Order: sequence, then C-alpha cells, then structure tokens
Amino acid sequence: MYNPYRAEREHEMAPWREKLNSIIFGAETKSGRCFDIVLIICIIISVLVVMLDTVDSLGQRFGVYFFYAEWFFTILFSIEYFLRLICVRKPSLYCFSFFGVIDFVSIVPTYLVFFFPGLKYVLIIRIFRLLRVFRILKLAEYMGSAQVLLVALANSRYKIMVFLYAVATLVVVFGSLMYVVEGGQAGFSSIPQSVYWAVVTLTTVGYGDIAPQTPIGQAIASLMMITGYGIIAVPTGIYSSELLKIHKTDSLNNQACPDCGATGHDFDAHYCRYCGHPLEI
Amino acid sequence: MYNPYRAEREHEMAPWREKLNSIIFGAETKSGRCFDIVLIICIIISVLVVMLDTVDSLGQRFGVYFFYAEWFFTILFSIEYFLRLICVRKPSLYCFSFFGVIDFVSIVPTYLVFFFPGLKYVLIIRIFRLLRVFRILKLAEYMGSAQVLLVALANSRYKIMVFLYAVATLVVVFGSLMYVVEGGQAGFSSIPQSVYWAVVTLTTVGYGDIAPQTPIGQAIASLMMITGYGIIAVPTGIYSSELLKIHKTDSLNNQACPDCGATGHDFDAHYCRYCGHPLEI
Amino acid sequence: MYNPYRAEREHEMAPWREKLNSIIFGAETKSGRCFDIVLIICIIISVLVVMLDTVDSLGQRFGVYFFYAEWFFTILFSIEYFLRLICVRKPSLYCFSFFGVIDFVSIVPTYLVFFFPGLKYVLIIRIFRLLRVFRILKLAEYMGSAQVLLVALANSRYKIMVFLYAVATLVVVFGSLMYVVEGGQAGFSSIPQSVYWAVVTLTTVGYGDIAPQTPIGQAIASLMMITGYGIIAVPTGIYSSELLKIHKTDSLNNQACPDCGATGHDFDAHYCRYCGHPLEI
Amino acid sequence: MYNPYRAEREHEMAPWREKLNSIIFGAETKSGRCFDIVLIICIIISVLVVMLDTVDSLGQRFGVYFFYAEWFFTILFSIEYFLRLICVRKPSLYCFSFFGVIDFVSIVPTYLVFFFPGLKYVLIIRIFRLLRVFRILKLAEYMGSAQVLLVALANSRYKIMVFLYAVATLVVVFGSLMYVVEGGQAGFSSIPQSVYWAVVTLTTVGYGDIAPQTPIGQAIASLMMITGYGIIAVPTGIYSSELLKIHKTDSLNNQACPDCGATGHDFDAHYCRYCGHPLEI
Repeated sequence: MYNPYRAEREHEMAPWREKLNSIIFGAETKSGRCFDIVLIICIIISVLVVMLDTVDSLGQRFGVYFFYAEWFFTILFSIEYFLRLICVRKPSLYCFSFFGVIDFVSIVPTYLVFFFPGLKYVLIIRIFRLLRVFRILKLAEYMGSAQVLLVALANSRYKIMVFLYAVATLVVVFGSLMYVVEGGQAGFSSIPQSVYWAVVTLTTVGYGDIAPQTPIGQAIASLMMITGYGIIAVPTGIYSSELLKIHKTDSLNNQACPDCGATGHDFDAHYCRYCGHPLEI
Repeated sequence: MYNPYRAEREHEMAPWREKLNSIIFGAETKSGRCFDIVLIICIIISVLVVMLDTVDSLGQRFGVYFFYAEWFFTILFSIEYFLRLICVRKPSLYCFSFFGVIDFVSIVPTYLVFFFPGLKYVLIIRIFRLLRVFRILKLAEYMGSAQVLLVALANSRYKIMVFLYAVATLVVVFGSLMYVVEGGQAGFSSIPQSVYWAVVTLTTVGYGDIAPQTPIGQAIASLMMITGYGIIAVPTGIYSSELLKIHKTDSLNNQACPDCGATGHDFDAHYCRYCGHPLEI
Repeated sequence: MYNPYRAEREHEMAPWREKLNSIIFGAETKSGRCFDIVLIICIIISVLVVMLDTVDSLGQRFGVYFFYAEWFFTILFSIEYFLRLICVRKPSLYCFSFFGVIDFVSIVPTYLVFFFPGLKYVLIIRIFRLLRVFRILKLAEYMGSAQVLLVALANSRYKIMVFLYAVATLVVVFGSLMYVVEGGQAGFSSIPQSVYWAVVTLTTVGYGDIAPQTPIGQAIASLMMITGYGIIAVPTGIYSSELLKIHKTDSLNNQACPDCGATGHDFDAHYCRYCGHPLEI
Repeated sequence: MYNPYRAEREHEMAPWREKLNSIIFGAETKSGRCFDIVLIICIIISVLVVMLDTVDSLGQRFGVYFFYAEWFFTILFSIEYFLRLICVRKPSLYCFSFFGVIDFVSIVPTYLVFFFPGLKYVLIIRIFRLLRVFRILKLAEYMGSAQVLLVALANSRYKIMVFLYAVATLVVVFGSLMYVVEGGQAGFSSIPQSVYWAVVTLTTVGYGDIAPQTPIGQAIASLMMITGYGIIAVPTGIYSSELLKIHKTDSLNNQACPDCGATGHDFDAHYCRYCGHPLEI
C-alpha cells in the first residue's frame, strides 16, 4: 500500500525520525504492528471509559478512576500526536488530513472541558481512530471492499436522491393527513409530530409511542405500512444492481487492443470493437 | 431539455413576455436560476409555516405571525401563478398540466379557509412544488434516474399486484384466526382490528399497542412474523431483477452485424466482435 | 386460456347448459364478464359483513341486518354452487378442484352455525374466491407473473429450508440464553416466552411488550438485532438470484436446431451446441 | 454421500459392529432410516421438555413428569452415545468431530445438575442434533444449498466487516448525540443505554421502551431511521451479488475451444458455439 507520509523516507530524514516514522505510520515491521495493536487497545478502553462514565451506578463508584483514566489517555494521545507531528515529513499535510483532524479532535476536548463541560462527549469521536484497525488486518482487502461499496453508492446517488425526495414527500403528506384524521389526539398533536410518526411507521421501526386509534387512521396507517414494506425494495434494488454492474466490469477482459490500445473487451471478443484489429486471445 | 411552455417562444410573443417566460419557466439564464432558487426557498418556508402553526406552544406565541406569513406567501404565489398564466403561450395547456394543477391547489385553500377551515391543511400539497428543485440541479440526471425507477416499477406491476393480493389474503386470514384464538381480548376486539394488527406484524412495524397474550396466539404470531420477514424478499427480488433487466437492455446495441448477422454488440462498438466487419452506427 | 370445465362444450351438452356454462365459467362474452363482476362485488360485501359483524358498536346496531345479509349471500352462493354443478361437464372434477372446495367451504358454515357457532368465522375463507378477480383483468399476464414467482420460490426451496432451520436454531438458542440472563423477570418468564421474544426481535418486528432490562440482556439483544438486520439479506439474495436465473432462461434464443431439434441456444450462438449443425440466425 | 465413519467398514470390523454402524450412522437401509426418525422424534420431545419445564403453570403441575422425561432421554442418549463409540472405527475421530461434541454436551449437563443447577438449560443445545434431520431428507440437496449460502457469506466477509464497522460507528456516534440532546431523561440515562436505543432504531426493531421526547431528538431519530431503512440495502446488495457470481461461475464451462480458443461455453455444450468445432468434455 502506498503511504503518503512515508513515501520518500529514504532520503533527508534523520535515522531516528525514519525509525519512529516506520513504527508509528507503518505496519510492516514487528514494532510497527505492536504499536498499532497497543494504540487500538488504548482507543477502545478510552471510548469505553467515556461511555461507562455516564452510567450513574458506575459513575458514582468509579468516577474518580474514570477521571484519571481520561486524563491518562488524553496525555498519552497528546504525546502520540506530538510524535506523529515531528516524525512526519510534511506536518501540515498530516494536520489537515482526515486522520490528522480526527486525532486532534480526540485530545482537545479534555483540555477544554474546564470551560465547556459539554465538550466531554465529543471524545466519543475517538471511535473513528479505530479505522486504523484495518491496517493490521489485511488492509488492501478491506480498502478494496470499502471502495466497491462506496463506488456503488456514488453511482446510485441520483437514484437515491430521487428516492429520498419521494420518501420525504410521502412522509409529509401522510403525516398531515393523519393529523387531520386523528384530530390532534393520541400523540398526533401537531403536524411535525405526525410526520415523525410517519417516519417511524414508513421505515417499519414502529415504536408504538404514537399509534392511530380511529378506524380510518388505522386504515391509512395500514396502507402506509404496506407502502413502506414494499418500497424498501427500491434502495435494495438500486444498490444490488449497481454492485452487480461493478462486478461485471471487473470480469471484463483486461487485454488492450494491440493496435489502438482500447480496453474493456468482452472475454469472448475476437476483434477490437473500436478499430476492428484482431485481438490476441 | 425540451420544455413545452417555451418551445416556440422565438416568434409571435412580445419581447417582455418572452423575457418573463425565460425567467419563470427556464433555468438556463442567471435570472431564471435566481428565480427558481427564491421560489424554492419560499415554498420550503411556507410549508414549514403550515407545519409549525399546528404545534401548540409555537401556535400560541407566533400564531399571528404565521397567519401573516401564510397570507404573504399565498399572495406571492398568486402573483406568480398570474404571471405564469400571462407569459405562457397556451394558458390552457399550463392550467391542466401536473404543475398547473399543483400550483393552483397551493393557493386556493387560503382564500376558502373562511368557509371551510379544514382546507388549511391542504396547503401542505405545496411540497409537490418542490419537484422544481430538480430543475436547478442536474435535471437530466435526476429525470433519467426517476424514469428508470418508474419503468422498473411499471414492468413489475403484474408481479406486484399478485404479491399485494397474496399479502391482503394472508392478512385477512391470519387476522381472523387471531380474533378467534385470542377470544376478543387484549386489543383483538374485532376482525378489522385484528387485521390491522396483522398488517402491523406482517410488515415488521410492530407497534406493540396490540400484542398476543395466549401461547397459541404467540405461536401463530411468530409464524406470521417469520413469514413477513421472509416474503419481504419477494418485492425486493422482483424490483432488483427488473432494474437489472433495464440495465442490460440499455447497455446492449440491438443492431445485427451486416456481414455475419451477430447481435448483442455494445453501444460503443464500431466493429463486429466475431467477424471484425464494420458496424453501421 | 385453456379452461378445463369448458374444454369440450361444443358437443353433447344441451344448449341452455352450454349457455349457462359460458356465463358462469367464461369471461369472454359480455354476460360472462357481467356475472364475474357481480359475483366479485357480492364476495367483497359478504367478507366485509363477516368482518364488520365482529365490531361491537356496529354489531349491536346493525346485527340483525348483518344476520340477514349473511343468509342472503349464503343462499345466493348456494344457488351459484348448484348452477355450477349442473352446467359443468364433469361435476366430480369441479367438486374436488381447488375452486370447488373453496366454493363449498364458503357456504357450508352458515348452515352449520346452529350446531357449531365458532364456524361462523370460517366464512372469511370467501376471500380466496376473490382469486377470480384476475379472470376479468388480464388473466394471462397475472397467471404468468404468479407462476414466475412460484417457480422461483420452488427452485429456492432447499436454500429456504436451510435458512429457516438456521433461524429456528438461532431463535431457540438466543431465547434460552436470554431466559437465563434476564433471570425470569420482565416478561422473560419461561423459555417459550423468551423464544417468542427472540422471534419478535430477530424479525425486526419489535413489539416492546417484552424488552430486556439488564445491561447484559441488552447487549445480547443488540447482537441479535444486528444479526436479524443482516440475515434478512439471505432470503432476499436467494430469491433475487432465482428470479434473475428465470429471466435469463427467458432471454435465450427459442430457435430449435434444424438438425437435432435442441433448444436453449444463446442469442449469439452460430452452431448447435449439441450436434454442431449451423443455426439459421 | 461420503461418510467418514463408515468409509472402510468392509474390512476388519466384526459383523455386529458393522450392522450397528450401518443402522446408527447410515440412512440408506430401512433400519437406519427408522433409527434416524426415532432419534429425531426423541430429540424434539426432549428439547420441548426442557422448554416447557420453565413455564410456571406447567412446571408446577407436570414438574415430576418432566424430571423423569429428562432423565429418560438423557439415559437413552447416553446409551446411544456409547453405542456410537463402540461401533465407530476410530472413536477419537468421532469424539472430537462437530457431532461428537454436540452429542456429548447434550447428555452431560443432566448428570452435573446436582452440582451446577444452572447447567440444566445447556440441554437446549440438543437442537443442534436436529441437523441430522437433513440426512433422512435429500441430504445432498440441502448440503449443496447450505454450502452455496456459506460460500457466498465467506466471499463477502470483507465487505460485511466494513459494513459492520460502519454500523458500529453510526450507532455509537448517534447514541452519544442522543444522550447529549435528550439530556439524560426518558430512558436515555447513559451512553451505553443510548447506544442500545440506537441499535434498536437503526435495525428498525423499534421496541418503544426508549423513545425520544424532544423535537430535536425526534428529528435526529427520524434521520437515523431513514438511514437504517436505506442501508439495509447494503448487506442485501452484497449478498445478492455474491450469490449471483456463484451461480454464474457454476453455469459456465471454463474449457477453451481447441480450434478457435473461444471460452464461456455452457457445461452441456458439445460443440463450440462460434466455430462449430467439437469440444473435449
């Protein structure tokens, strides 16, 4: 895998910076691998600390330990951030990269919590740092898979936008209808509330905190549920067919025409479809 | 994009009407684009006003502002409707088009609200006017996507009808069965109520306002849930395969090779892939 | 469409029986079409009567009308059943056909209701008679669609059985686990009850009448929900791929080899794949 | 079907052991089939006994019968386990096979229940023994289907891992957000609790035991439901396309024509479809 932070490490950098760089940013050497594993364990524990601190029964008993743990991990991550800065070739490149921003946002809130106590929960963003876990697993495989999933999503963006507009319209119209029909009782106290109910129903979540009471309301709700149950086929169909198109492109002949260089021929093609030159099969 | 209201604007119309037409109906010029953006913002705010007016706490405090806002937007949209009428070449064509009817229904209720107060909520129909948002985005892309989704839906209409009949039958039969089994208690007070429960269960919405209490009822309900969980595969399968068929047809050329008669060439092929003979494209 | 009851009507039957047969069993003539429409309306009303009779508020007010309506329809359907019997060429064939049995079960319960009051609800089975509605619509289209759906279901029966066994095992194991974890409180009062909860959760129905209270129970439940959310992909995938396989077979060349008569060649095949004889394309 | 326990039974084993082996491990002879059916009935009854024993009303009345039934089945299964051990060629091979372990775990808990009463519920594991039911049905068909489903699952493991990581991140981030927004009331009492709610919502289960009360909370929840409703398309799309790839690979012959080198022939093709040359099958 190409790694922009390490790309040109073979010249100009002091040996200890090179070493540090290979440990912190790389995963090929044994020490690099170890560093990544320790880092991931620290991240998981620090996220758990933030989460468990909010549980009343645990917070009262172990609150002080959680407090120390939070500071311990914040200082640890600060040192790590500092080391990353000094061993990377172009600190500005790292600072404004996706991981650079995440790493920064993962340590700052603890320092600012004296001024803005609510910031504490921003630390949960550390979970994004876990993306690094894919580096010690077979990164290329995961990256390839993620890319296929994202490309299929990108290809189907227009269809998905049209679908979302249709869902939004359905939800607003049905929600307003239910507000009129249910006459403002039983949780349908306003149109926004009814629209919320419509989202809960159409997506088949169905909390049940708001439910129609009148026969006509139940009939409309039934219609809506069947609609929601049926149109779940639309995003699924869109996504499946995009994924399949990507697979099909994968299975094309990757031989270039010897005459004009065109690619993308079918496996069973005998002649280049652009210039008519025979292909070497 | 072909636009029926503007098609022949280059002759017979007074210059100011032509100008107005290009602003109101077009989206190519800068002023046309601006007009569309302002219009969309007005539509969104006016829909929000209708929705928020029904929230008690807001309605009491800002009720009078909402009232003025509603009249403001209604008068604005009335002027817009009037301008559309006078600058279009054939007003009758516009009046009875989809957008013409929507535009009309979006302003009339405010005027009639003195006589029929309930009509107020019909204003929510303004959300359909938002379809114009696709005009300032890449309209052709969205229209193409919407058309593919609708064609796939139209192609699978017979299969979907059969599926809906099967669902309706399942729901009525299971609903009646549960009415008999649960003995009219716990919400299963009548067959229509039980059928409503069956819809809620089969579509995996599951409000929980009505739930079986007896062991036999729970066993039947379990059976039904697994059925509902499984048959969601049917509309999804139907829709996915229709979408894929459209993709396949789209990506194939139905021209036969003039030399060897082979078919199934790609759209961008210039030469027959079996005999190398040039194709007439 | 081939109709077994009418197949040989051109000989041996008295003219009035032939006429009656074409009205009752056929849908080509105007009178046959009329008969079907009237019949379908009667079926829908009679099903509604059975359903609405169970609604307390309606049952008390209109009970006596419902009682007469039920007898009216039962007598009407009895006459119809009798007419079908006398005008069909082979009564025994009709009697034991799918529709013959449904027609019989749709009238008998009213007569037996004096002895077994519970039988009344069996009348809901009349909804299956509505299948005749497809005869006045484009029957062939619907039958073709229904057949494709059923063939895909039949082809995937082994995969579906394996899937259902896996679901049953998951549900029993998770249900028992939750019974142990939740310690018999909060609705998890016995293993069958917990298994019922597991079905409700795995199928994403989620009534909420039984819900885990302990942190460990909620963790297990979360795991189960994600499993259920993920494995819904399995039946959908099975069914989609079966439907696509059927479509692919449909799109094969239906030309038979002029030499050996083999069919099922691809559209782009030049030679019979069984005997090597050139195909006429 | 190849059966490792019976593979070499034709030599070295005493006749009675051979006979016993064919009855217990085989399903071809009539007595082997009978044994399997009786065994499956015993397994089902013994699982039901464990389940029903936990129902209070039944446990009090029939508790003593359940106790005897449990011992009866445990002794029966112990004898069966012993017989399997003595008639198999290599007992160690059987002991550590999947079925060997399941069979052992299915009898031990009853003996240990004096020391660890909680072990009783481990008996539910007997349900895995039911896998043997596929042996008396058409085993090969089911095994083939199960294998296709598992291979598709294995092929899509990287994509599924990426998807699960995305779901986990969504759930933690949204859960924390809701904890902050809902201010610790209405069930959102801690981050882990809020994350549990997020799982319930994203998977469209929707118990309703925890539901947002504030308008902003409901807006975020709506967003999350639509996300959950949409991304269910991802695992379905992944799985569908993997299943289709397996079908495609299965139905194509990877032999090239010896004359023209064309590939992609069907498995049952005898001649090249492009040049008519016989294929070597």
